Formats: sequence, structure tokens, C-alpha cells
Amino acid sequence: MDRRSFLTSSTLAAPGAAFLAAPACAQGKRTLSMVTSWPRGMAGVHEAAETCANAITELTDGSLTVDLRAAGELVGAFEVFDAVSAGQADMYHSAEYYYVGQHPAYAFFTTVPFGMTAQEMAIWYYQDGGQDLHDDLGRIFGLKTFLAGNTGAQCGGWFRREITGPEDFQGLKLRMPGLGGLAMGKLGASVQNIPGGEVYQALSTGMLDATEWVGPWADEKAAFYEITKFYYTAGFHEPGSALSLGINREVFESLTRSQQRAIEIVAAEGHQRNLALFLSHNSAALARLKARGVQVLSYPRPVWEAFGKAALETLEENRDGDIYDRILESYMRSMRLSSEWIGVSEGSYRAERDRVLA
Amino acid sequence: MDRRSFLTSSTLAAPGAAFLAAPACAQGKRTLSMVTSWPRGMAGVHEAAETCANAITELTDGSLTVDLRAAGELVGAFEVFDAVSAGQADMYHSAEYYYVGQHPAYAFFTTVPFGMTAQEMAIWYYQDGGQDLHDDLGRIFGLKTFLAGNTGAQCGGWFRREITGPEDFQGLKLRMPGLGGLAMGKLGASVQNIPGGEVYQALSTGMLDATEWVGPWADEKAAFYEITKFYYTAGFHEPGSALSLGINREVFESLTRSQQRAIEIVAAEGHQRNLALFLSHNSAALARLKARGVQVLSYPRPVWEAFGKAALETLEENRDGDIYDRILESYMRSMRLSSEWIGVSEGSYRAERDRVLA
Repeated sequence: MDRRSFLTSSTLAAPGAAFLAAPACAQGKRTLSMVTSWPRGMAGVHEAAETCANAITELTDGSLTVDLRAAGELVGAFEVFDAVSAGQADMYHSAEYYYVGQHPAYAFFTTVPFGMTAQEMAIWYYQDGGQDLHDDLGRIFGLKTFLAGNTGAQCGGWFRREITGPEDFQGLKLRMPGLGGLAMGKLGASVQNIPGGEVYQALSTGMLDATEWVGPWADEKAAFYEITKFYYTAGFHEPGSALSLGINREVFESLTRSQQRAIEIVAAEGHQRNLALFLSHNSAALARLKARGVQVLSYPRPVWEAFGKAALETLEENRDGDIYDRILESYMRSMRLSSEWIGVSEGSYRAERDRVLA
Repeated sequence: MDRRSFLTSSTLAAPGAAFLAAPACAQGKRTLSMVTSWPRGMAGVHEAAETCANAITELTDGSLTVDLRAAGELVGAFEVFDAVSAGQADMYHSAEYYYVGQHPAYAFFTTVPFGMTAQEMAIWYYQDGGQDLHDDLGRIFGLKTFLAGNTGAQCGGWFRREITGPEDFQGLKLRMPGLGGLAMGKLGASVQNIPGGEVYQALSTGMLDATEWVGPWADEKAAFYEITKFYYTAGFHEPGSALSLGINREVFESLTRSQQRAIEIVAAEGHQRNLALFLSHNSAALARLKARGVQVLSYPRPVWEAFGKAALETLEENRDGDIYDRILESYMRSMRLSSEWIGVSEGSYRAERDRVLA
């Protein structure tokens, strides 16, 4: 999932498009605008925003109405952060790694290479201090922020030929945005940032040797299986991409306690529900892709070792002696603890159960 | 986690203990009683009930107040289902496998041996039809029910000697409640149902050869590490135990749409938040147990194969040609699909990441 995949539909808002006066009030009832990074109907992510918006409206029994504006309807897909920070809109629903330009630590509140799965993210966020750090970061930008969706682990992607070792990435023309792309560059890949709408064509002509996309649900729609059957299902670059709901901090503080809690609980419930949505659709789509002859592959172990080294380097490069470091260290500490427990309990259970039932 | 672990503290309610008149009303404000299976302060589970009760009160802005009554305060720990079904209390917070006597299909809404992890459960429940089947089952008893917590995968348990193969279970004096215990019986274990308060003594004197308990957080409190260091962390019997919130159906239908949605969303949010609570505490406790010299062990593969065979047999035995079959088949279908996807994406990712970072 990257910024360029849907630029066409996300930049409908011309400069000078009217902003909502925030927030609209009438007889104790308020309307809050929610601007999103998602074109209407974009599978999974627009749904996540819509579910949150509707639930906040329902739970506050009409005292708040959330007016959802898809990408480009009020501001462009990647302008939502700045718009809410500046008070030009009330809330956003987005993936905050789009805002690493505003602050590199925002990557941790979506996903980082070699980072947490969705479940580990929930442990860090709701129990091990992640939410407080998110709050500290948001305060810099006048925001109150909550996790509010998760796509689950994204796939390694579609390759025109099999990968046999880390040396195969040397010169490989690969599309991968963000920190994952930076890490791939360290392996010698030629990382191309090709707009989403052109990727199918580029892969089919050999202008690209490989591309990541999202997961079986979205990848099936993109029809990459028509070009190649080599599908690496486990990727290292986005192991559990969270979505966020951000609200202008002054607006948030002007709400009643009950309204504030409604937003907080709806967002958290959205994290789990949206994950279930993605995982369920991915599961069904994977079965269909396999029926089309797609080969489900895993990278060889030395490739994982190279990914790990490169990924950790990219995370270290943004150290600032300040909040980035605090977030990085808290994140790594929580992941180390929780991954060990999950590995020897649920992880080991699932591996044995699946082996026996197969 | 079993019925007998906390019988002492849960049966304070003498026969004839007063029931709340349901529901109490005053000036459009209503008080709903929530009876639970948990003694006050019981780690993780009482907290799950309390968090839900408080959140419902907060979200409905005073129009509903949930009056939480711990086990024994109004009715006994295992009487909550019947009490809410009969309208003697408004809501319960419990683990529904305690009510397999009322209907064997209730096992699926907590956990079954060789069944789903918490994440797989969320996929089935929120996406693949589980919630509708829960609703169908609840209707039989005049209930509206929601998942509202999860302890995560429970441990195989504490053994006085290592397990080298399935034959080691022959005659083994083992404490394990529920369907897991039935499956263990098929392996020849002598399954003992010893009250929770007596387990430490029984294990230390050799009256028991082994016991399951909950997970590192609770197991550390029970101090079994003082008796033996052989700790099987992945169990087959409770791979992700959900907790439920049930509400009398007539009471639920008398609520406003906004109140109904508040209960539904608070319960779902509780499923994720409570899981994060258990996983975080288990992770930290596991590290402390290892520092005390506890050995983290896995059952050998032939043992898993024997567990699988026995577990599936126990699930088949309750077929009724009716709702049990529909639930079993829906559950198995969803698990088969989602476990494959999780295995080749997140599962494979986590295994490689943890190996490389170790």
C-alpha cells in the first residue's frame, strides 16, 4: 500500500477547495468532518474509515455526526494530516507512515520492516506504552491519535523469477515504497517508484522484475497472477500495517467525556474488526489464487538474514536522541518480550495443529 | 481455567440470595446488573468484566449504568447463565464453555481442543458467520451474546517428568478440565478434577503427575515452578479462550439503538484489549519464570498427532444433526481457510524474524 498507488483519484481537490469550518454546531449537536486517504470504495481501508465514522455517530446518539470525506473530496489523500493538524478538518483516517516527512517516528504507528504483527502491535499499543508514545508524538502536531484498523501482514510480492539467495536482489528492478524499499536498496535492488496504475504493465513488459502490492484480496484484483505465478506470501516490509484515526486536539478537548470515549473505543474496535476483514478476504482469495496455479513461496533463510540486517539499519538511521529513540526502544522491547511468548505458545501450537490437520 | 479453580470464592451466594429486579429505571436512566463468573480481583478476567461495565456506562452518558456483581455477590459463578436467561439478572460476563451442560455448542464460543487461536476466532466471529451462529444459539436461551475478552493460548502445563511420546500419558495422573480432559482420557491419562486451591499440594506430593493451569501470568502466582521446572508452554486444549458478555434478550430489545451498539462495540473492543492484557502479562512472566530456571518445552510431534486425533473425536461426539453441526462445520471451514493464510504470511514471517533477531 503506497502513496502513489492511488494518486489519480486522490488529488481531485484543487488548491482552494473549500474547507469545512470546524466544527459545525447546531443546538448542542455537532458535525465533525473526517477526511481520509482512501478513495471511496477502496477495499478494506475506505470501509475501515466508514465503519468508524458511522459507529461514532451511532454511539453518540446524534450529538456528534461524522461527515466522511473520501480522498480528494475535501483535501487530497496525503494532505489529511496537515489539514487536521491545522484545524482545517476535524479528523483523519489514514496510514501514518505517509507522514514520515512530518516525523520519521510515524512509521512505527503503521508498520516498519522486521517489525510487529498486528497482534504484537495491539500488545504494545494497549498495554506496553505504545498509545502514550503515540499521544506524545501527536501533541507535537496538535493531534489526538488512535489506531483504527489493520491490514495484517502484507505479502513479499510477485516475482518474474524465483529468488534463490540475497545476491538475486542485485540489480533487481523492484517496486517497494517506504522503509522496505530503502532496505531493499541496501541489498542492491533497483527500487522503482511506479504509480499503482502502471504496475501491471511494467511487470508484464519486464520494466519491473518484481512488485509488492498488498495481500491476496487486493493482489487478485490487480491480476498479477496473469503475469507470473511466483508469489512470496510472507514479506518483511509491512508485517502488520495499522491505520489511524487522528483528531485535532483542540476539537477533541472540546468534546464531552462520553464523546471522547466513544471515539477511543470505536477506533480500538476498528483495529480488530478491520484486521478480521482483511484476514478473512485474504484467506479466501489465497485459495482462489492457488486454484489458478499461483505458487506460494517463502524466501530462503539467507534472504531473511539479509532483510533483517538491512531493516534494522534503516530503523537506526533516524535516531534523534529524542522521541524517535524512545519510540524505537519501547517498540523493540515490547516486541522482544511478546514475540517470545507468542512463539512458544500460540506460534508453536499453530504450527503443530496445522501440520497434524493437513 | 476451570469451574473448580475458584469454587470457594464463587459460591458465596446462598440459595435465596436476593435477585435484582431487572432492570431498574429512574427518569429515563436505567441500571443493568452484570453478574460474572469471576471473584473480584481475579487477574485478567474480572478486569475484562469491569472494563466492559465501565465503558458501557461511560458511552451511554449516564442513560445506562452497569452494576457489576462479582461471583457470589448476587448469584454463584456458574449460575450467571441461567440467571440472565431467566431474567433474574440483566447481563453476564463469563466463559461460555462452563455451559456445555445447557448446550454443548457453547464450547465453540470459548475454545475447543485443536481449535482456533484468538486471531482466528476474531476472523470467524466478526467475518465468517460466527457471530450469527452465536446469536442463533443464544436465542434458544433468550439471550443476546457477544465475545468480550480472550485469555490467548493457554499452556500445556507443568509436568513432574518430561514427555517423550504419547505412551507417557498412559496412567498419568493429570488435572485438565473440559473437552481437553476428555481428549487426554483417550490417551489413557487418569484425569483428576481437583479443586484449584488443592492443586499445588497435589502436584508437590505426587498425587498429580501434571497439571494445566492458565499461562505464565497466573501460573507464576500459583508457584508451580517451585515443584517442577518442566513447563510445556503450547497446549492443545485451550488455544484461545474467549470470554462472553450475554444479555437477556428482552432487556436488549428494550434498549435504544445507540445503547445496543454501545454494548456491542464495547464487548468487541474488550475482546482485543483483554487479549493484549493477557499476552503482555504472560510475556513478562515467562521471562521471570525462565530466570527461575523453568524449562520451556514442546511436546514431541507424535504427541501432537495423538492430541489431534483425540481432540477431533471429542468434537464429533456431540453432533446433533442440528445447530451443533452447523456451528462445528462453520468453525472448521473458517479455521481451515484462515489458518492457511496466517501460516504462509504472518506465521512464516514471525518464525523467520524471530530466528534472525535471536
